[in-house]
Amino acid sequence: MSVFLAKGTRDFLPADMLARRRVVQVVQDVFERFGFEPLDTPVFERVETLTGKYGDEGEKLIYKILKRGEGGKRGEVDQALRYDLTVPLARVLAMNTDLRMPFRRYHIAKVWRADRPAKGRFREFYQCDVDIAGSQSPLADAECLAVLYTALRELGFAAFTIRLNDRRILADLASAAGAADAATEKSFLVALDKLDKVGREGVDAELDQRGFSADAVAFAWDLLTPQTSDEGTLDFLASRLGERGVEGVEYLRRVRAAALSLGVDPSSLAVDPTLARGLDYYTGPVFEATVEEPNVGSIAGGGRYDGLVGMFSKQDVPCVGVSLGLERIVTVMAELGMLPSPGPVAEVLVSVFSDDYLDHSLMAANTLRAAGVRAEVYVGAPKLKNQFKHANARGYDWLIVVGPDEVADGVVALKHLASGQQERIDASAAADRILASR
Amino acid sequence: MSVFLAKGTRDFLPADMLARRRVVQVVQDVFERFGFEPLDTPVFERVETLTGKYGDEGEKLIYKILKRGEGGKRGEVDQALRYDLTVPLARVLAMNTDLRMPFRRYHIAKVWRADRPAKGRFREFYQCDVDIAGSQSPLADAECLAVLYTALRELGFAAFTIRLNDRRILADLASAAGAADAATEKSFLVALDKLDKVGREGVDAELDQRGFSADAVAFAWDLLTPQTSDEGTLDFLASRLGERGVEGVEYLRRVRAAALSLGVDPSSLAVDPTLARGLDYYTGPVFEATVEEPNVGSIAGGGRYDGLVGMFSKQDVPCVGVSLGLERIVTVMAELGMLPSPGPVAEVLVSVFSDDYLDHSLMAANTLRAAGVRAEVYVGAPKLKNQFKHANARGYDWLIVVGPDEVADGVVALKHLASGQQERIDASAAADRILASR
Repeated sequence: MSVFLAKGTRDFLPADMLARRRVVQVVQDVFERFGFEPLDTPVFERVETLTGKYGDEGEKLIYKILKRGEGGKRGEVDQALRYDLTVPLARVLAMNTDLRMPFRRYHIAKVWRADRPAKGRFREFYQCDVDIAGSQSPLADAECLAVLYTALRELGFAAFTIRLNDRRILADLASAAGAADAATEKSFLVALDKLDKVGREGVDAELDQRGFSADAVAFAWDLLTPQTSDEGTLDFLASRLGERGVEGVEYLRRVRAAALSLGVDPSSLAVDPTLARGLDYYTGPVFEATVEEPNVGSIAGGGRYDGLVGMFSKQDVPCVGVSLGLERIVTVMAELGMLPSPGPVAEVLVSVFSDDYLDHSLMAANTLRAAGVRAEVYVGAPKLKNQFKHANARGYDWLIVVGPDEVADGVVALKHLASGQQERIDASAAADRILASR
Repeated sequence: MSVFLAKGTRDFLPADMLARRRVVQVVQDVFERFGFEPLDTPVFERVETLTGKYGDEGEKLIYKILKRGEGGKRGEVDQALRYDLTVPLARVLAMNTDLRMPFRRYHIAKVWRADRPAKGRFREFYQCDVDIAGSQSPLADAECLAVLYTALRELGFAAFTIRLNDRRILADLASAAGAADAATEKSFLVALDKLDKVGREGVDAELDQRGFSADAVAFAWDLLTPQTSDEGTLDFLASRLGERGVEGVEYLRRVRAAALSLGVDPSSLAVDPTLARGLDYYTGPVFEATVEEPNVGSIAGGGRYDGLVGMFSKQDVPCVGVSLGLERIVTVMAELGMLPSPGPVAEVLVSVFSDDYLDHSLMAANTLRAAGVRAEVYVGAPKLKNQFKHANARGYDWLIVVGPDEVADGVVALKHLASGQQERIDASAAADRILASR
């Protein structure tokens, strides 16, 4: 039988896992410093929960699970793997109406998209999400920007930009370009969302194809004339946009001001009225973080979605959140040499001399572990040479040998592998020595 | 639209998550103290990887994922959610032949079984697995017993039993009962595996139905006559079984002796020649842990499976491991009042007075967080009364208010909620105070 992974997935062997969990720990610590609490949801949801939330393109990428029993034999599906962590949160909020608001949760977990696998693009990947539910205050949006900013800083990123826009500004731009209804507005957004990939000419071609007039589109581009500062951009937009757009501008002003008070460096923020974000469900601010080098696209994004919970429940719950893409962050950190490379889990190999002295080795291991030392007992072929090789190859700092002389004297031989120094002390003293060297 | 979870699944809200992660942390710390390293695999595997590993009953419970594209429209499947963490490990070992042996890994993650949901039985649940690959030494089995024992002790369990048997003993018992080939041996095991549920009479009825003669079965039961000690049981079995059985007995003796040297209390072990364990892939020792109260079935189990990797690869890799069932452990801990009930994540609510003084509240929050304090900024309706209520309801220890007087004096008001005591100090001093009170 051939052995393969499922397409677009991968294993994380211990060295990867140990590096990645350091990264996750930094992110989680920052999330908790902002008062977010952990929440977990099932990996699969009812199909109806996920459909109609991600747009046509997104929906094609949802993994569906065959129904159990007879239905499955007919190819029926009833469940699907989550596509993101946001829709499951909205379902939780709709089901748990007694949650105290404002409610802050984080969720660091895998999501699945049946996308075409490519370099750095997998079908199973981790997202790190924070969301605040139950607040329409720009403070909530600012908290999300601040937690994103702080997480990226504490991961070690020096040069990154969080671009910022508001869907109401975009809606007004779409109107300026001739969109007269919500569907046409959405069509404008879908075209504009490709700006980073296809450039202005590409967007113009797509808008033309979608039936926007060249004059109206030119008028919209005029509103997008770059200004020299974020304040300048907001002032310019406020002076040119209609009521809905100005509402977005004024909201963004308050978000931005609060984010700066929360410690966000203004040079890390950039108001960008061209920023669209693909997902259907955003209603207010949207944001996206990118690093300058290497060019991997956005490493985090988010926004306000005040209508999503209402798709599940009569009672709407305003929400805002941000999602860090762990895979891209790890990729960038690896390319920039920022990824931690922690050593092995265990710090000492307890070697096994021969059956006659085995018990003493095992008792020493027990003493070490009871004291909190992380110890591997060697369970391979008992040649001492193999055991030295194993301890060195695994990168352990220490090796313990219990031979006839040690048993006679009631001690163990504790060898420091890097220096070659060796001491004969009792097992508790060896534990103390190892713990003190951490 | 109605809002439901997928059948047999559940959400873990923050209070659950915080309690469960304390439990997981204890387990993980013990795993690492034994030198096991983390490994992660995709939640879905190719269907072929999972089929033929779990017996007919198990295989029915595997969730299958619809193929993407045209195949899916015809109801074809290509992937399936993992049923346990053992088969994915075997696939990893077959694919990564350069892993240094003996290889210890742990994996704490969800698995899925489309079982009939019942009280305490979910379709999505966590397993906590440790396995040692690449060793045929009874020391490896003993390490698994010792890590299981230590984890249960450190979780706070006082009264539990790890039952112990060997598949070779069972094979010999099956021969004694008249089984002449591997299929009949397996049939005997399947019947015996139900002993806990249906009692001896039930097993006899099933063996009769499966074509075993009553005389031969009685002869096998005779071998199962309870002895007064584990040593007695092993001696009795050694004196009565055939070659294969004695091999199992002698191996178990060595496993048991090594486990005792590794600190396992002999009163927690019980050699039980009736213990079968359901899974097909075991080849040597099998073990299972149960608590006396409450009666929830086994809370952990494992064994040696020397043939599983060989189902994927020409090169066989002997393995032994143990799996702790987190759901049952949490259920038992909750019923026995052993489950931790940690407080909220944040320790202080930074209240927001009015727009005029907002910046000062946010800057105070930033100072607290930069110092490592976990702080929620209140983003709800800004009435101070609401904010006190929120801080109390969330169980925070501290509240910070920054009003006009505090802004004028460059301080914050730090209120200790339990005592009602309040101090006016600067934000850094408030951070120090909060950190010192942890």
